[in-house]
Amino acid sequence: MEFNILDADAQSNARAGLIKTDHGEIETPIFMPVGTAGSVKAVHQRELKDDIEAQIILGNTYHLYLRPGLDIIRAAGGLQRFNGWQGPILTDSGGYQVYSLSDTRKITEEGVHFKSHIDGSKHLFTPENVIDIQRAIGGDIIMAFDECTPYPCEYPYARNSLDMTHRWLKRCCDRFDQTPALYEYSQALFPIVQGSTYADLRKESAEVVASFERPGNAIGGLAVGEPAEMMYKMTDEVCQILPKNKPRYLMGVGTPANILESIALGIDMFDCVMPTRNARNGMLFTSEGIINIKNKKWQDDLSPIDENLGGYVSQSYSKAYLRHLIISKEILGAQIASIHNLSFYLWLVKEARRQIIGGSFASWKTAMVKKVSGRL
Amino acid sequence: MEFNILDADAQSNARAGLIKTDHGEIETPIFMPVGTAGSVKAVHQRELKDDIEAQIILGNTYHLYLRPGLDIIRAAGGLQRFNGWQGPILTDSGGYQVYSLSDTRKITEEGVHFKSHIDGSKHLFTPENVIDIQRAIGGDIIMAFDECTPYPCEYPYARNSLDMTHRWLKRCCDRFDQTPALYEYSQALFPIVQGSTYADLRKESAEVVASFERPGNAIGGLAVGEPAEMMYKMTDEVCQILPKNKPRYLMGVGTPANILESIALGIDMFDCVMPTRNARNGMLFTSEGIINIKNKKWQDDLSPIDENLGGYVSQSYSKAYLRHLIISKEILGAQIASIHNLSFYLWLVKEARRQIIGGSFASWKTAMVKKVSGRL
Repeated sequence: MEFNILDADAQSNARAGLIKTDHGEIETPIFMPVGTAGSVKAVHQRELKDDIEAQIILGNTYHLYLRPGLDIIRAAGGLQRFNGWQGPILTDSGGYQVYSLSDTRKITEEGVHFKSHIDGSKHLFTPENVIDIQRAIGGDIIMAFDECTPYPCEYPYARNSLDMTHRWLKRCCDRFDQTPALYEYSQALFPIVQGSTYADLRKESAEVVASFERPGNAIGGLAVGEPAEMMYKMTDEVCQILPKNKPRYLMGVGTPANILESIALGIDMFDCVMPTRNARNGMLFTSEGIINIKNKKWQDDLSPIDENLGGYVSQSYSKAYLRHLIISKEILGAQIASIHNLSFYLWLVKEARRQIIGGSFASWKTAMVKKVSGRL
Repeated sequence: MEFNILDADAQSNARAGLIKTDHGEIETPIFMPVGTAGSVKAVHQRELKDDIEAQIILGNTYHLYLRPGLDIIRAAGGLQRFNGWQGPILTDSGGYQVYSLSDTRKITEEGVHFKSHIDGSKHLFTPENVIDIQRAIGGDIIMAFDECTPYPCEYPYARNSLDMTHRWLKRCCDRFDQTPALYEYSQALFPIVQGSTYADLRKESAEVVASFERPGNAIGGLAVGEPAEMMYKMTDEVCQILPKNKPRYLMGVGTPANILESIALGIDMFDCVMPTRNARNGMLFTSEGIINIKNKKWQDDLSPIDENLGGYVSQSYSKAYLRHLIISKEILGAQIASIHNLSFYLWLVKEARRQIIGGSFASWKTAMVKKVSGRL
């Protein structure tokens, strides 16, 4: 994996870069649609490419390991061959899902014992086997196995958890370095900064993470309920330590405003279920602000979903038609809203990149944060 | 509306024809995907056109009248302008839905009093207002309001019901002839043959329906639970009376085998929810037979869904991936299976047409009925 910074904003830490993977290039800053179980919900693979113009999508280790399981993914030759998405894929390590989805789980130094949310079967994730699993799934970028602390989190718990996450990181890196990629392309391992909302822990973690000298670095454990200002403060502290010449990935973030503010702090990569999950519930992100399409005010609005966005769904379907579909619980409503919201997120980061390169990012960001946060 | 027969099979009553509407041509025999509430479930409008190669789709008067309502459809300029499907549309009259969906309904000579299945509100459908509603929805082909008798049905009930359906038909035709189309294209009204499973009633109804000299004729009240042989017998009797030079539409039919057998009897048009409804449940119709994709045997099958069918979904996604999506209740599973099944149905009628024109329909049909009815 290669990363080059093409331009940096003079008034912030924002940068425009280019990641090269064996499955193609990624222009940063980038938003990565979430394809939890091997599918970005309600979106065809060709729509990801042609309509949304996604450059990389996510898969999830916890979900894919449980279903469909590794045998079939290995037999297919990796996740891309299995699901037909031909661009780069990043797999999350499953750390977050083990904590949020499993009924019962027990964290030990060895790893995490958990029960499947699907059939109650018992499993153990360790730093080592999570690397093995991600080798089998075959993401271009794979993530270290960590503990994602909740918010709020007492200092002593955060302190101890962080130490263990760092020991696990060493085990992840060792396993990664001792094992080959299983398919005909290379994989990069990203370590994850933790430390809850404590600046000293975050700084320490960023130093440790940086010391592993991996091709890219991630920040986890944020956007878990803390105030946005606290998230920005932690992100800022960490970005000042993580090496400038490597991509920085802020996991699970966030709203359009969160993304713009974090780009200004030096973040290059984002993922979040918000654009797709909220779409299924009728919440649309547009270039003019947020729309709850279920509101009666859109009932007679025959204008396109977003006049400023190109693309089939944003232009071909009206707000009134989409409202009718969502109200009637028609599957096509979820499809249209998901493609639209993801198109908007990809448009937003592409536009941010263009503004960084053009030298106008700071003023554009201020205006845009206000616009995209308002409700229409 | 124009209809021309291009070729007729020498060994059966099958024919290959061409319907011309103001929204485009329809090659018959044709299958019409069902877009009940203004959307063919889980399918984008461009997919109907480009992948499925649909030539006409259905809308439903009962559903569209209740939601989104006529005001917005009128404001849009008809259903095509509202939902973005630019080809021909046929609207069912709502007769069937009033009986099957409404909690309580009372049939009188005037019409049918019923309660909305959505909010319990009370409504009255009459032959006159159902024509008015279909004028507002704006289908290229609209249907007479009838009583669809259940199966089994006692002779005296069927006799009385048929007489009323014929009186209603007169009222539908009068209203239709007294009212203009609301948009810049013309509409055609199809009357419907009823008569349950009684040959004498069916023949009488076919005579009455034919006497109204409309551009096309339909057969309703079949595929409601009676044995297939009984359905074929009724269809055969009716087809011998309905004029040859007009399209014949067998409503709500059916399985691939039902369609092939009915084409042989002289039917030109079909609709059915089966390909989309069964798709969402994991049942696939393929050129080699029926697949229950949930079965374990498809778990490791990385071959395309249907090797004999062209098209994006049938070729780009494997059986194993589709099985994973359906088992995981991923929306994309419903999307892929729906496009595939509809593509198969459209392929089937296109192939039937090619065989009729080529003079090989009878032998092809015998082999194909066997093939498409088997389970893989």
